Amino acid sequence: MMITMEMNRVITFVKRPIGKPEKENFEFKEEEYPRIKNGEILLKTKYVSVDPYLRGRMKDADSFIEPFKLNEPLISMIIAEVVESKNDDYKNGEYIRGMLSWKQFQSHSGDGINKLMITDKDIPLSAYLGVLGLTGLTAYLALKKIGTPKKGETLLVSGAAGAVGSIAGQIGKLNGCRVVGIAGSDEKINHLIQDFGFDAGINYKSSKDMHREISEKCPNGVDIYFDNVGGEILDTVMQHINEFARIVNCGAISNYNKESVPKGMRLEGIFNEKRAKMQGFSVLDHTDEFTEAVEQLSEWIQENKLQYDETIRKGFDTIPSAFIEIFEGKNTGKMLVEI
Amino acid sequence: MMITMEMNRVITFVKRPIGKPEKENFEFKEEEYPRIKNGEILLKTKYVSVDPYLRGRMKDADSFIEPFKLNEPLISMIIAEVVESKNDDYKNGEYIRGMLSWKQFQSHSGDGINKLMITDKDIPLSAYLGVLGLTGLTAYLALKKIGTPKKGETLLVSGAAGAVGSIAGQIGKLNGCRVVGIAGSDEKINHLIQDFGFDAGINYKSSKDMHREISEKCPNGVDIYFDNVGGEILDTVMQHINEFARIVNCGAISNYNKESVPKGMRLEGIFNEKRAKMQGFSVLDHTDEFTEAVEQLSEWIQENKLQYDETIRKGFDTIPSAFIEIFEGKNTGKMLVEI
Repeated sequence: MMITMEMNRVITFVKRPIGKPEKENFEFKEEEYPRIKNGEILLKTKYVSVDPYLRGRMKDADSFIEPFKLNEPLISMIIAEVVESKNDDYKNGEYIRGMLSWKQFQSHSGDGINKLMITDKDIPLSAYLGVLGLTGLTAYLALKKIGTPKKGETLLVSGAAGAVGSIAGQIGKLNGCRVVGIAGSDEKINHLIQDFGFDAGINYKSSKDMHREISEKCPNGVDIYFDNVGGEILDTVMQHINEFARIVNCGAISNYNKESVPKGMRLEGIFNEKRAKMQGFSVLDHTDEFTEAVEQLSEWIQENKLQYDETIRKGFDTIPSAFIEIFEGKNTGKMLVEI
Repeated sequence: MMITMEMNRVITFVKRPIGKPEKENFEFKEEEYPRIKNGEILLKTKYVSVDPYLRGRMKDADSFIEPFKLNEPLISMIIAEVVESKNDDYKNGEYIRGMLSWKQFQSHSGDGINKLMITDKDIPLSAYLGVLGLTGLTAYLALKKIGTPKKGETLLVSGAAGAVGSIAGQIGKLNGCRVVGIAGSDEKINHLIQDFGFDAGINYKSSKDMHREISEKCPNGVDIYFDNVGGEILDTVMQHINEFARIVNCGAISNYNKESVPKGMRLEGIFNEKRAKMQGFSVLDHTDEFTEAVEQLSEWIQENKLQYDETIRKGFDTIPSAFIEIFEGKNTGKMLVEI
């Protein structure tokens, strides 16, 4: 690795968003190129994952993950290459995955990151941030632990064309469920049915009567609602759930950019009447099950039973805009930036 | 049993309530005294249980229990004495418990009712409709199956002076929890603390700042919320829950008399952030665990570890008004009518 005289580029968080994130929340800075000490490694960023949950860390509020600090680099899941090593555990050319800073290059102790064990050359590196990363793990483990799909049940997925939803729906099919996806365009719905094997889809943006559409497409009611969006769609779905339904509360993207808690339908009466369950899920609570989950997901990919989408933006400069695009619904599947 | 020439009295359901139930929803009728056929028994009503969930059966709506039919007798859990038997399984003088009609006397096949095995004379007959009936079973099984109390956790109970809430709180104490009750008068709060061993109480009617009171009385946050009321108190409590909190959705009495689904705070964001769970509960889904539950509850009563209240109205004519009184908060503990 030749050390150039160029400066290292960094994206810092300079202003907490009010509502939807905007470019003004981010600032590109330059810093000296990092030098590593004994025991450290030098990492070159290859793929950066941008995810809705990062919006939560932008609030200065008590949450299960520490809020981002102002004027410091943002952090997300990143795949990087080891380009210099003074740590016996790492060799040049190895790939690692970890929660890293939005920097072109960074020094690292090597603790708290994982080497990628890339055994199958048919699975590209980027998949380790998506279907084999936190999004695929979220779909798999949330469905397994809360959704508990059974053969013949109906699984309804919101945000179905998104990174988590599209995998959750396919896993529902692999478990023998009827799977219906809610998404925001006819193209997405067609894609879900034709490429991902969903049984039906509902375009919530063009639908004039969501109740009628849910009734038609889930004729036996909804046993599992894998919810990535919350809000009014949740209220509507709740009126179609079966007894003992499970609501996998995997995200509430419709609320993330709201500054105050929005009002909606009181759902507790329905939960009581149907003896239904709603449970929030974060994959970070289940790290002990990651190995088993990655093995299962890899097996399905290799057997061609699990498809996945990536929306890949290119270049370090596109990271903030790629993040903002998620909230505009511009991605299909996992949104990544390739450096 | 001497057959008198008196007529048998019956309470029928004549008008579906809009909002709070009123006397006009009920009508007293007389019918001929029942005669039993071979295989049947004649039952004399002794204790009638009146419960909030009956309000749900008064709606002409799809529910997990069939709605009451107009111009037919109402039905609830009743303790009756066998006063005549042409069924080898039953003898005169035995007591049974079952879902029976609001009649002074009724014939019955003997199917779907249970003989009371009254082993301890210190436990009065009426307890078999309360602490050893569906209300005690609800408190015990809902807490066991959804609340999963652990030593040192904080259990907050709404409707804490009610039949279910007062038992749930005491079972929380027996499991080593800090237990805080929400009720509607200072008398009820004092009663919960002095007689039932609750650690603290909150009078929601006189409180000027529920948030401050919950913070003060649940200084380590809320791990389990045993909710009998729903509504605004639920919204308030949700802002004080800990990670992995369990909301036992045992009832939503604040909504029962509402004709349309009321609006409230959107809770899905909090569920997601805290990875909390809300689950509706009906004891009728868990009949296979009744025997074990009654044994445990009886043992605690005999060991003087579990106290219970009854509000007993007297006379067949008081059944409708006793039911209406529940919605006015006039009962402490289980509301019963003794005939």
